[in-house]
Amino acid sequence: MAILGELGTEILIPVCGVVGIVFAVAQWFIVSKVKVTPGAASAAGGGKNGYGDYLIEEEEGLNDHNVVVKCAEIQTAISEGATSFLFTMYQYVGMFMVVFAAVIFVFLGSIEGFSTKGQPCTYSTGTCKPALYTALFSTASFLLGAITSLVSGFLGMKIATYANARTTLEARKGVGKAFITAFRSGAVMGFLLSSSGLGVLYITINVFKMYYGDDWEGLFESITGYGLGGSSMALFGRVGGGIYTKAADVGADLVGKVERNIPEDGPRNPAVIADNVGDNVGDIAGMGSDLFGSYAESSCAALVVASISSFGINHDFTAMCYPLLVSSVGIIVCLLTTLFATDFFEIKAASEIEPALKKQLIIFTALMTIGVAVINWLALPAKFTIFNFGAQKDVSNWGLFFCVAVGLWAGLIIGFVTEYYTSNAYSPVQDVADSCRTGAATNVIFGLALGYKSVIIPIFAIAVSIYVSFSIAAMYGIAMAALGMLSTTATGLAIDAYGPISDNAGGIAEMAGMSHRIRERTDALDAAGNTTAAIGKGFAIGSAALVSLALFGAFVSRAGVKVVDVLSPKVFIGLIVGAMLPYWFSAMTRRVCESAALKMVEKVRRQFNTIPGLMKGTAKPDYATCVKISTDASIREMIPPGALVMLTPLIVGTLFGVETLSGVLAGALVSGVQIAISASNTGGAWDNAKKYIEAGNSEHARSLGPKGSDCHKAAVIGDTIGDPLKDTSGPSLNILIKLMAVESLVFAPFFATYGGVLFKYI
Amino acid sequence: MAILGELGTEILIPVCGVVGIVFAVAQWFIVSKVKVTPGAASAAGGGKNGYGDYLIEEEEGLNDHNVVVKCAEIQTAISEGATSFLFTMYQYVGMFMVVFAAVIFVFLGSIEGFSTKGQPCTYSTGTCKPALYTALFSTASFLLGAITSLVSGFLGMKIATYANARTTLEARKGVGKAFITAFRSGAVMGFLLSSSGLGVLYITINVFKMYYGDDWEGLFESITGYGLGGSSMALFGRVGGGIYTKAADVGADLVGKVERNIPEDGPRNPAVIADNVGDNVGDIAGMGSDLFGSYAESSCAALVVASISSFGINHDFTAMCYPLLVSSVGIIVCLLTTLFATDFFEIKAASEIEPALKKQLIIFTALMTIGVAVINWLALPAKFTIFNFGAQKDVSNWGLFFCVAVGLWAGLIIGFVTEYYTSNAYSPVQDVADSCRTGAATNVIFGLALGYKSVIIPIFAIAVSIYVSFSIAAMYGIAMAALGMLSTTATGLAIDAYGPISDNAGGIAEMAGMSHRIRERTDALDAAGNTTAAIGKGFAIGSAALVSLALFGAFVSRAGVKVVDVLSPKVFIGLIVGAMLPYWFSAMTRRVCESAALKMVEKVRRQFNTIPGLMKGTAKPDYATCVKISTDASIREMIPPGALVMLTPLIVGTLFGVETLSGVLAGALVSGVQIAISASNTGGAWDNAKKYIEAGNSEHARSLGPKGSDCHKAAVIGDTIGDPLKDTSGPSLNILIKLMAVESLVFAPFFATYGGVLFKYI
Repeated sequence: MAILGELGTEILIPVCGVVGIVFAVAQWFIVSKVKVTPGAASAAGGGKNGYGDYLIEEEEGLNDHNVVVKCAEIQTAISEGATSFLFTMYQYVGMFMVVFAAVIFVFLGSIEGFSTKGQPCTYSTGTCKPALYTALFSTASFLLGAITSLVSGFLGMKIATYANARTTLEARKGVGKAFITAFRSGAVMGFLLSSSGLGVLYITINVFKMYYGDDWEGLFESITGYGLGGSSMALFGRVGGGIYTKAADVGADLVGKVERNIPEDGPRNPAVIADNVGDNVGDIAGMGSDLFGSYAESSCAALVVASISSFGINHDFTAMCYPLLVSSVGIIVCLLTTLFATDFFEIKAASEIEPALKKQLIIFTALMTIGVAVINWLALPAKFTIFNFGAQKDVSNWGLFFCVAVGLWAGLIIGFVTEYYTSNAYSPVQDVADSCRTGAATNVIFGLALGYKSVIIPIFAIAVSIYVSFSIAAMYGIAMAALGMLSTTATGLAIDAYGPISDNAGGIAEMAGMSHRIRERTDALDAAGNTTAAIGKGFAIGSAALVSLALFGAFVSRAGVKVVDVLSPKVFIGLIVGAMLPYWFSAMTRRVCESAALKMVEKVRRQFNTIPGLMKGTAKPDYATCVKISTDASIREMIPPGALVMLTPLIVGTLFGVETLSGVLAGALVSGVQIAISASNTGGAWDNAKKYIEAGNSEHARSLGPKGSDCHKAAVIGDTIGDPLKDTSGPSLNILIKLMAVESLVFAPFFATYGGVLFKYI
Repeated sequence: MAILGELGTEILIPVCGVVGIVFAVAQWFIVSKVKVTPGAASAAGGGKNGYGDYLIEEEEGLNDHNVVVKCAEIQTAISEGATSFLFTMYQYVGMFMVVFAAVIFVFLGSIEGFSTKGQPCTYSTGTCKPALYTALFSTASFLLGAITSLVSGFLGMKIATYANARTTLEARKGVGKAFITAFRSGAVMGFLLSSSGLGVLYITINVFKMYYGDDWEGLFESITGYGLGGSSMALFGRVGGGIYTKAADVGADLVGKVERNIPEDGPRNPAVIADNVGDNVGDIAGMGSDLFGSYAESSCAALVVASISSFGINHDFTAMCYPLLVSSVGIIVCLLTTLFATDFFEIKAASEIEPALKKQLIIFTALMTIGVAVINWLALPAKFTIFNFGAQKDVSNWGLFFCVAVGLWAGLIIGFVTEYYTSNAYSPVQDVADSCRTGAATNVIFGLALGYKSVIIPIFAIAVSIYVSFSIAAMYGIAMAALGMLSTTATGLAIDAYGPISDNAGGIAEMAGMSHRIRERTDALDAAGNTTAAIGKGFAIGSAALVSLALFGAFVSRAGVKVVDVLSPKVFIGLIVGAMLPYWFSAMTRRVCESAALKMVEKVRRQFNTIPGLMKGTAKPDYATCVKISTDASIREMIPPGALVMLTPLIVGTLFGVETLSGVLAGALVSGVQIAISASNTGGAWDNAKKYIEAGNSEHARSLGPKGSDCHKAAVIGDTIGDPLKDTSGPSLNILIKLMAVESLVFAPFFATYGGVLFKYI
């Protein structure tokens, strides 16, 4: 048996969760010391806003108090806009969730004809709980997952809107201070989410266990609902938020920057508040829900597969909780890693930001490898058995260590490749910037080709992880590799959230009429943020591929499919149609962004044409109309893509059966991963190519600029095209592939019993 | 036994081939009556260029003779440029072919250790021919396929350059006359290619049969080399030609139309001759090779699968030749269909062109369905047996009719969907045009979304064909469905070739300084040509999907793989890496186009800056330098993508074995089809959106125009981005998927014997 006893596990997991939450609160406390009320600021620490440093405004002799008041006002406006949007969205999504919960209950309950009698287990011996109760628990865990995801996104948004004006104010003291504020705020979100995700899952397992007792199979089957709930919420969050942010962003960009030649973030632009709200609801709340969903799903996948291993049969609690233990260690390692950025080293210049964030990933991966080795030695028996589609497979604990480690390091490779293709420090983005010389067309072609090329190495990295981890421990190995890649969640989220916070900080600086030097600093933060956001998306997509493969494997086991043979026409048509779904979905999400943006553009134009004095800055634009357009558009337009993803597994499974559904899942997976990676890298590259020209930090960059030159205009067009790619359609694709897989898994017993109606009757 | 005896078959196939060739020659004769020498023209038929109609120039009082001389000059320049490029390319490709032929011989010969002794057959009883001789015959048929493909492309180019100036001259008499000239020239190419493809294949089979006797398995195994040869040639033709045409086109467009605001086809543009040469070497010669390759491969796939059916075992010659008989009937039906366009009806207005071309497809499909039913009844036994991966499957002759018919009608559906998404008569393209109001960025996003959306129905059509035809007759059914879709080759090529011929005709009219009314007519022809080219590409991609699936099935049979299980890691990593290959390949082909185009742009700019009087039209540009840049770029740049496609199956098969290779083939197929369809439709839609604005035929279109407006500029950017998508990366993707499949099939015995080195030793 393992060294770590059951009691040890029962202590270790909650302790790690609590430590994560305490750390988050501590970071929040530090951020909150930056005051956005001018009076309090002077009171707090002997003038100079609570710190001993000189502010840029003071150097330049500008009025400090007024700026702080303005920042506070803008922050409030953004926060209110975001809150009102999220509440509107949650109402609609809430109705959907209730309906879908009923569907889950009815479908799963019907399997044994709503009988309340126990049934013989599939894998272990003895009697398992009746399907009706599992249906009930699945429904409960579905709702719980959805609520946790919702709360995660909402909290993230709150923290981000709390932090953005503070980052702006800190930028007056230097780029290092601004960085640390934005990064700490990101860390609050990261640690809060990963800890609460772990905590809720752990508590749910323990509560469910009171009913299920030693029926691990039933227990973890019902727990998969948690993943489904988290993921469905993430879908709507990502798509709805994505449409919102892009409509506002494109609207603000097109009319403001391109047509009227005023800064997109300028207070004269009517879409500017909507744009800032968008960053918070799309990039922050959407991403929070998304990563929480990934985490929940990969844990569920690992737990389900583990439940039909020898752990489950031997009722080895510690070994069963191994996936949770890995996540717990992940939180502690993330905590140590964060200290390297916030306390051990100090950022002094803008050029140090990107290396510092990159170092975060390397430090994390190295430390985590050790952490996994330790927990592996403590928690796992030296040898155990995995059931691999009927056959048994013997696995050693060190084998499983390799599975987690290969996922971890593959994630790092994907991260670095993504960075190489999206950072303007390297030749790919510089080439894209250079292609702007010959106009927007070449810029677009180069950008698209860059995205396509950036797929190659990540796919090889994923393929190697799959091969290695599957060879060692079958589907359990893949699930653990996914969890290894996702153990960075807290750090990853911190880095990810840091980007939009900086972006917002820049917007606030512009709107508050602060010095352009402040804007330069926040722009530098933001450029690094774009790259790290792309890295984060790389992680998210890579892990999504592994997670959905693991879920797919669990689905196949649950549905009793022995072989998914490409040469069978049922599977092949599933495969080709599945490979088409990401295109269908992307077409929907990309177009709706644009339709909404077109409406926004017209509204913004009309305001410029009808409100006298708007261009001169003497009249105030009507921000609220623009906020409303975005809200309405995103609520209305998120339904078709949402329905496509949620209904496909149900329809295919019911009408065509589990074989075709297996094909669809595999097809969507292998095709969706490519589009997701290429879309988010293309978008990131265009954004940074534009920033490269704007910053003008090298001879080459200056030859392309300055702002407003033909090259720059071409770069802006690329950036505008890239926005929906990198913020809406790219990231929501990885939800598509995971969600379809987890949904199939939840409904697997139903499909296995009643599925394939069409083939049965033809 | 079948009604049609062996003798009947031996007569019918050559007769159909000869009829096709005679028809092609007859069409050529009619086209040749249009004289491009002014003196001969007046002599030929009592003045007025041999016809009784008034010419536009005569109405407008322009000098007729000068124009004709100029046209002839330009035609000669284009023809010489194209010939010199093709010969340069053929030298390099020739060297490659010789090396690859040696590889085939050594790899396949080595299977039985270069032994000259016969071996027991795999499927039928008795002794089959030794591998060494099959290697020899495979090598021979490979070279034969390559040469036939090369000749096809070259002849097509010759015919097109022969026809373009004639189309220009005929446009003076009206749009109907111009249409018929361009269409007849296309028909010359279509019938010549399909008849010679059939003829060469038939002769080769008969010659090989002298050695193989009743060893059908060995015979058709060696015949697959023919498909590989045709397809490899097609790859280089498409990629090399595609790079050439796009470098020239983008170069001409960007500097001419966008920067200097002169017509892209104007004689002042230094890249203009290169641009016209490009249309002929890329669109015509490349497409000729490509469609010939498809035809050869689908015939080979059907023959190989048939050889291991009861036909082969019973030595039923007529039934064995069923695939060739379907193609023979196809030629006759195409001939009848062509008469509807050229003789039974007359085109009087530009608006009638597109309906006329569309009618061609409907007439063909309806007639061909009857034709297939007849040949089915004549040539097939009522019942026969197919071997389906070891298991036997009974098939009736009417079942097989359904397979061909489903392919045929699926092709029609794909064609119409493609038309809907790429013709400016329908809302999708009009929406794209409308999106230009808000600039190039929205145009690009709408165009990309349109391409993605256009994938949906074709994929369902392909999926249904696969399911139906596989259920009826396993892989043989799929091969026959592919052949059904490809039986349109002659008509399809005629329609396809008509587009670039019209495009060239317009270019010649511009360069010869003819009336703008001539240009309007050729533009109308060209707009219809864009749509039909997209339809043709739809057919090519749809059939490519079916062909490669059939080849994949044949490969799996030959390699002795029983099951391609997605859940096996070897297969899954193949699947995900295979799905990545089209992205890698597209990244290569798209980027090289642009790199070459950038060089072209610089050269063109320099000419404008250094040659005094060029903008005023008093000095002549240096056309030859531009031709040389395109030639050099395409020869150099076609190697990496070519190597990727040709080497992948060899490397994967040798190192990772047949299972992983199966995964790669399936992955590349399901992912490549989507990119190919979306890329070619997006490109077609952008091109026609631009033409829609330029033509200004409706209230809506006029509100977006005229030429040179902001909307139009945005549309031109879209068109420029779309060019490499629709002419290089899209069409070459379907070669990628077919070629990898046919190559795997040819090398299957080698991989089965020696493959998977890496897994064996690790």
